[in-house]
Amino acid sequence: MTAGGLLLGVDVGGTTIAAGAVTPAGEVILERRLRTRERGPGHAVETIQALIGALVAALRDDAERPGRTPAAIGLGVPGPVVAGRVGEPVPHVPELAGRALAAELAERFGLPAFVDNDVNALALGEWMFGAGRGARSLVVLAAGTGFGGGIVLDGRLVRGVAGFGGELGHAPVKLDGRPCWCGGRGCLAVYASGRGIAESARERVASRPDSSLRRAAGGDAAAITAPLVFRAAGEGDAVASSVVDEACRALGAMLATVVNGLNPDVVVITGGVAASYAALEPRILEAARGHAFKEALAATRVTIVPGDKHVSMRGAAALALYELAGRAEGA
Amino acid sequence: MTAGGLLLGVDVGGTTIAAGAVTPAGEVILERRLRTRERGPGHAVETIQALIGALVAALRDDAERPGRTPAAIGLGVPGPVVAGRVGEPVPHVPELAGRALAAELAERFGLPAFVDNDVNALALGEWMFGAGRGARSLVVLAAGTGFGGGIVLDGRLVRGVAGFGGELGHAPVKLDGRPCWCGGRGCLAVYASGRGIAESARERVASRPDSSLRRAAGGDAAAITAPLVFRAAGEGDAVASSVVDEACRALGAMLATVVNGLNPDVVVITGGVAASYAALEPRILEAARGHAFKEALAATRVTIVPGDKHVSMRGAAALALYELAGRAEGA
Repeated sequence: MTAGGLLLGVDVGGTTIAAGAVTPAGEVILERRLRTRERGPGHAVETIQALIGALVAALRDDAERPGRTPAAIGLGVPGPVVAGRVGEPVPHVPELAGRALAAELAERFGLPAFVDNDVNALALGEWMFGAGRGARSLVVLAAGTGFGGGIVLDGRLVRGVAGFGGELGHAPVKLDGRPCWCGGRGCLAVYASGRGIAESARERVASRPDSSLRRAAGGDAAAITAPLVFRAAGEGDAVASSVVDEACRALGAMLATVVNGLNPDVVVITGGVAASYAALEPRILEAARGHAFKEALAATRVTIVPGDKHVSMRGAAALALYELAGRAEGA
Repeated sequence: MTAGGLLLGVDVGGTTIAAGAVTPAGEVILERRLRTRERGPGHAVETIQALIGALVAALRDDAERPGRTPAAIGLGVPGPVVAGRVGEPVPHVPELAGRALAAELAERFGLPAFVDNDVNALALGEWMFGAGRGARSLVVLAAGTGFGGGIVLDGRLVRGVAGFGGELGHAPVKLDGRPCWCGGRGCLAVYASGRGIAESARERVASRPDSSLRRAAGGDAAAITAPLVFRAAGEGDAVASSVVDEACRALGAMLATVVNGLNPDVVVITGGVAASYAALEPRILEAARGHAFKEALAATRVTIVPGDKHVSMRGAAALALYELAGRAEGA
C-alpha cells in the first residue's frame, strides 16, 4: 500500500500543535509539540513549519539511524478542506482559512503533503490503525471541546463538495432546541460536547445555588467544566445528572441517525469526552435503541474509545498513507 | 457503460406493483401495473413474476419489433436488501422478508436480476436520469406516505452493512419528539411524510371542532389527508398551517444534517408529497439555513422534484444499469 517510509503526522488544535514521525503501522517514534499561539495570534503556519522542520532535522541527524527522510506529510486542521486548501470556518485558527496549505508545505519541504479536516484524519486513523481496522465503512463521532465527525464508506473518505463531510456535530438533534455557538439550534454539539455540557450545567445551576455541582466548582458557576459535570452526576447531583442524561440521549439520537442513514460496519465514539462516555455506554445504546431500526443497530458495531495522546498524529499520518495509496492507484 | 438493451424496472409499492420496459436512456416504452394484493395477501411475489412474464412476452411478441429480450431485471422493494436478499422490516409486503428475490427472479427468467430498496433505486434513477445527472454525489429524500432516502456518494450507492443505507426518514430530528409508527420518537417521518402530516392534523383538530380543515374533511377528522392539510394551510387554516410549518422545519433540519454531514453535490426532495413541498421551497431552505453551515449549504444544490408516474420504474431500471456496470468493471 505504501513505500513503508515514515510519515509526518501533524495535528493543529486550538491550544497545541502536535507533530510526530509515525511508522506505516501507526507507531509514533518521535514527537514535538508547540502551543498554537507560540508565535502569537495569526502565526500558526509558522509554528506548523517549525515543527515539521524540527522533525525533518531530527530524523536526518538521528544518532542511531541518521539520514532518514519522511515519505510524506499529513496535516489535520479544525475546519473544512477541499483539495488541500482550507475553507471556512476554522475555529481557533482563522488564519488558516483560504490557504493552500498542502501545496505550501509540499513546496517548502520537498515532500508530498496532504491536508484535511482533523476529524476526517482521525477517522482514517481509526480505520487504518484503530477500532475500525478491517471495516469497510466506519463513522467517527469525536466529542471533545467541540464535536466533530468523520465518515469512511466503502474504503473512501467522505469529504463532501465543500469539505464539510462528517460534520455531524452540528447536525440538529432537536428542532427548536438550544441555540448553538455555530449559529444553529439544537445541534448535537450543544448537548454532547465538552463545551455544550459545561454551558448547560452553568445555565442550570444559576437557579440552583444549593447544587453540589456549584459547590464542587468552588461556588463559581463559571468554573464548571465537563469533567466536573460527569463527576457530580456520578455522585448523584440532580443538575449534573440532567445534563449528562441529555448528553447521552442526544448522542444516542445521533447514533440512530448514523445507523439508520449510513448503517456502517463500525461507529467509533472518541475524543476528549469519550472517557466519560465509556462508563455510560449502556445508557447511550439504550437511547439509540429508542430511535434506530433494531436490525440496523444490531448490524453496526458501536465502540467508545477514549484514545491516547498520539491519536491525532496517527490520524494525520493515516491521511498521508491514504492519499499516497490513492495516488499509487491513480485515483 | 451497458450493452444498450432494454431493462425491466419493477417497483413494489404497498398498493401497486408497477413494471416497465425501460431504455438505457431512462424512457419507459411499455408498462404494466397490478394491485400488490392482486392474488391476495402474501402473494406479492407471484404478482411480480406475472408482471415480468407479461413484459417479457410483450417484447417477444411485439408486432413492430418482435423477438426482443431484456438485458436485465431491476426490482425495488420497500425494505432493506443485502446482496439481493430482502431483510426486515418490509412494510405492506412482509411476505418478501427473507427471500433471495434476485436469485429467484434470475433463475425464473434466465436474466440477470437485481433487487434493492425502492428509494435506493429511486436515488440511482435521479442520479442517472434525473435531477442529479452528472453529480458525483447525491442524496434523495423521498416524502410519500412514509419517508425514505437514498444516498449515492462518489458514484457509489450507500447500502450499509444490513441494507439500511439512506433510511433518513426514521432519523430523529427532535429529541423527545412525537412517537413514530416505527417505534421511535421524533423521526423526520412523523413530521414530514404524508402519513405524519395527516396524523398530526387529525390530532390537533380534535380540540378544534371549529377548524376549517375539519370542515374541509366533511367534519370527520379521520378523513383528513396530507393534500387537504396543505390546501387548508394555503387558505390560512391555523391548525393546518402549524402542521405544515412543522413539516417544513423538520425537512429543513434534515437538509442541514445531510448538507453538514455528507455535503453532497445535490439533494433531491421527491416523492408524492414533493409537489406540495415545491411551493414551500423558500421556507424549507430558510429552515435549513437556520441549522447548516452556510458554506456547506451554498455548495450543495437542493432541488424539489415531484416526479412523474414513471419515476419508480425508471429507478428500478437504473438499479439494473448500475449493477451491470459494476459487473462489467469487475467490481
